[in-house]
This record gives sequence, structure tokens and C-alpha cells, in this order.
Amino acid sequence: MLENFKRVRFVLVNTSQPGNIGGAARAIKNMGFADLVLVQPEIFPSDRARWRAAGAKDVLQNTRVVDTYAEAIADCELVIGTSARERRIPWPLVNPRVCGEKVAAEASDTSKHQVALVFGREDAGLTNDELQRCHLHVHIPTNPDYSSLNLCAAVQVLAYEVRMAMLESSGELKDFEQEWDAPLAKSEDLENFLVHLEETMESTGFLNPKTPRQTMTRMRRMFGRIRPDQSEVAILRGLLSSVKPKSK
Amino acid sequence: MLENFKRVRFVLVNTSQPGNIGGAARAIKNMGFADLVLVQPEIFPSDRARWRAAGAKDVLQNTRVVDTYAEAIADCELVIGTSARERRIPWPLVNPRVCGEKVAAEASDTSKHQVALVFGREDAGLTNDELQRCHLHVHIPTNPDYSSLNLCAAVQVLAYEVRMAMLESSGELKDFEQEWDAPLAKSEDLENFLVHLEETMESTGFLNPKTPRQTMTRMRRMFGRIRPDQSEVAILRGLLSSVKPKSK
Repeated sequence: MLENFKRVRFVLVNTSQPGNIGGAARAIKNMGFADLVLVQPEIFPSDRARWRAAGAKDVLQNTRVVDTYAEAIADCELVIGTSARERRIPWPLVNPRVCGEKVAAEASDTSKHQVALVFGREDAGLTNDELQRCHLHVHIPTNPDYSSLNLCAAVQVLAYEVRMAMLESSGELKDFEQEWDAPLAKSEDLENFLVHLEETMESTGFLNPKTPRQTMTRMRRMFGRIRPDQSEVAILRGLLSSVKPKSK
Repeated sequence: MLENFKRVRFVLVNTSQPGNIGGAARAIKNMGFADLVLVQPEIFPSDRARWRAAGAKDVLQNTRVVDTYAEAIADCELVIGTSARERRIPWPLVNPRVCGEKVAAEASDTSKHQVALVFGREDAGLTNDELQRCHLHVHIPTNPDYSSLNLCAAVQVLAYEVRMAMLESSGELKDFEQEWDAPLAKSEDLENFLVHLEETMESTGFLNPKTPRQTMTRMRRMFGRIRPDQSEVAILRGLLSSVKPKSK
């Protein structure tokens, strides 16, 4: 595992449903992390957690259970708490994207800081006291009509954003645009193809050269949008070559 | 619900675990969506799905069950399939962030297109045939050592990204930086405070004006980083004023 991923800890406080612990372990491992700490979970370990963890049982095995919140975050330079509610005294608050960027920067090889992302109880979140021990709060912008996010879902979203920011900063986030198995057709290839298409349309009697209307313009526009690759143009030209002209 | 959110459909193909259907319903509603279509689920409806849906039972009640994949996507102008594997013939492929932007643009009030996000089986994803009926594939960049994402987690990540892109395009994505309850201290306030601090440090005997070293420079640097607000400066000055000088 990469060093910067090791520097991000996920802390679950007083989790009541064992399934959520397993689901969180899976989400954490799926996103490349491994450090899960439980503050006084109701039930742990459990079969339910192991089942939900699926292929992340190693994360569960290494999960630390601690008695106090202070213990879970003691060695962290940056502590970020998830918050659903508006606070009476506003705290520095970010959205998940900015949170991901901040955590990635903090856990980078330059800073080498240990970061904790803290998640509260299923029904009541984190207490004010717990939130006030965080440097920063993060709020996931849920639907105001139904804002209560499942615990695993919150872990998943934040772990995902931190991973995205880490991949982005290391240049590993692909946009995939360049991954293709055949080179794109060049302008000349497309022009030759369009001439071939027009000739074929005329030879079958579909297109009347005296009243062509906008047919070829529409075809040109469509193939321009498609931006076919060279193998696709070759297939299409093969098809055109196989078309028999209308018998006179 | 906003019109553009209504134009995004979540299609689950051959889901085997009822809990995942409930979890997906909840994730969808949490992110502001409501349109869930199931293609031949193994079990539906079920108590397990209702339990996991929590406050999203209305989404489950309105969920359509169809016999074929073609039926689920028939009226959609854009179909995006989730893909975990490398394809033999590369397909247009995006990461979840770009996917969110594309869906948000497509479902906007300008385009008014119906979009489907399609999710495959828990164990085997979508078939090649199903993937080839998509305009676009999206790949969530999971940990290569454990890439098998839970179905709900995949729904959550993509629903979240579409929501973020929609909030961003409507200017509703807060960065929260401006939300504070007291105005920031101005340079003058901070200077007066630092003078007060220095005087107090000298009056208690903590700071020797003959050998001040870097103490005030470090304090200046720290308060510069903090950027205290006016109420915080007022509290600190109140404290300083309450400090009794060292009896001579």
C-alpha cells in the first residue's frame, strides 16, 4: 500500500449496527485504505460485520477498538469530523471534494501527517464535544428532503474523494480519453469515405444528384460528431464497396 | 424534486441481494433522485430491501420491475454502464467525475434528455452485450488489490458525483468558506492585540525585553495563520487585561 494512503485513518464512534462496520471496512479497502478504528462499538467482532466486509476481512482483523475518542485521534495532526447539522458556533466546514484535497495534501509525502476522518453514530452523528475536537468539519451535500446518509455511504463518499484527490495529485487519475485501440481517422480518410458514400448512394438510386437536398450535409455532420477511427472507416468502406449498383 | 434530477434513472440488472436494492434506493434518494428500475431482480419486493431503504421506502414503492434490459433503457437518450473490467474492444470510458459532469449536462434544462446509469450483477457486473448497448462506460478507480465494489457503494458514488455536478452547475455547491458568525479581525486589530500580548508577557516576567529572542515573531506567525475573528480577538484581549502584572 502507498504510504500516503496509510496516513488516513477512519474512526467510527459508537457504531450500533455491526453490518455498518463490515461495510465500512469494505469501502475503506476498496478505496485503497486500511486503518479502521472503532470507539466503543456496540458489537464487535461479529459474523455480520465479517459477511459485509466480504474481501476486506484483513481490515477488520487489524481494526483497533478503543475506549475513548481521544485515544482514537491522539496521534493525528489533522482531525476531520463528518457533520450533518448546522452548528450553533460555525466551525471551519468543507464539502467532500475540498475535504479530499485537504486530506491528500496533508497525508502527502511532503507533510507526512496522520489524518483522521471521524464518523458518528447512525442515529445521532457526532456530539458537539466530539465535533469541537475536530480541526475541520465536512458536510456531504445530501438531499434536504432526506439527508440521513447511511454510515457506510458516508464512509464510501469520503474515502472515494480522498482517493480521487490522491490519484489526481500523483497524476494517476485517468480520463481514459486517450485509451483506444485504433488511431482516429484523419480528415483525408473521412473525405475519401464521404465521396465513396455519396457515389454509393447515387449508384443505388437512393440519392438523386439532381435533388440531393441536405443528405450529404447531414451525413458529414454525423460522421464529424462520431469521429470514427481508421478501423471503423475501413469497415464502412468495405461495406460500400460490397454494395451493388442498381441495375439499369 | 428538481426537473434535472428526475431525468436520471438508476437501472439495476439481475440484482441477487434484496438488501442491495434497499441500499440503492436509499443512496438514490439521499442524493436527490427517485427513478429506480430493476431488470429481473431475484427477490422483489422484500422486507430486507424495505429495511435497508430506511427513509426511502417511497422510492421502492415507485420502483419499476421490467423483464428486459432493453425495456429499462428504451426511452433514454444517453445510457451509461458501470464497468469494472478492461474490455476487449475499448468503449468510450470516463471516470466518475467526468460521468457526473456528462450526466448533469445531458439532463439539464437545455438538453432535457433522459439518462440511464446501469449497474450489473453483484458477482459478474454487466455482460458484454449489455455494455455494448451503452453509449459510454464509467469506471470507478478502485484499489487494484481489491476492486470489487459493493453494488450500493457504486450507486452511491455515481449518484453523488451526478449530484455534485448538478449543484456545481446551478451554483449551489457551497464551499462554506464564507459562512462564519463573526467578521474577521482586521490588520489593525491584530497589531493592537500583539502589542497588548507583548506588554502582558513582559509585565508577568515571562518575556525579558532585553532578550526577547523570537517569541513575538512566533506569536505573530501563529496568529497570522489562525486569522482570528473579531470576537476571538476580543476574548483574548479580555484575558490579557485580566492578567495581573508580576508584583515588583
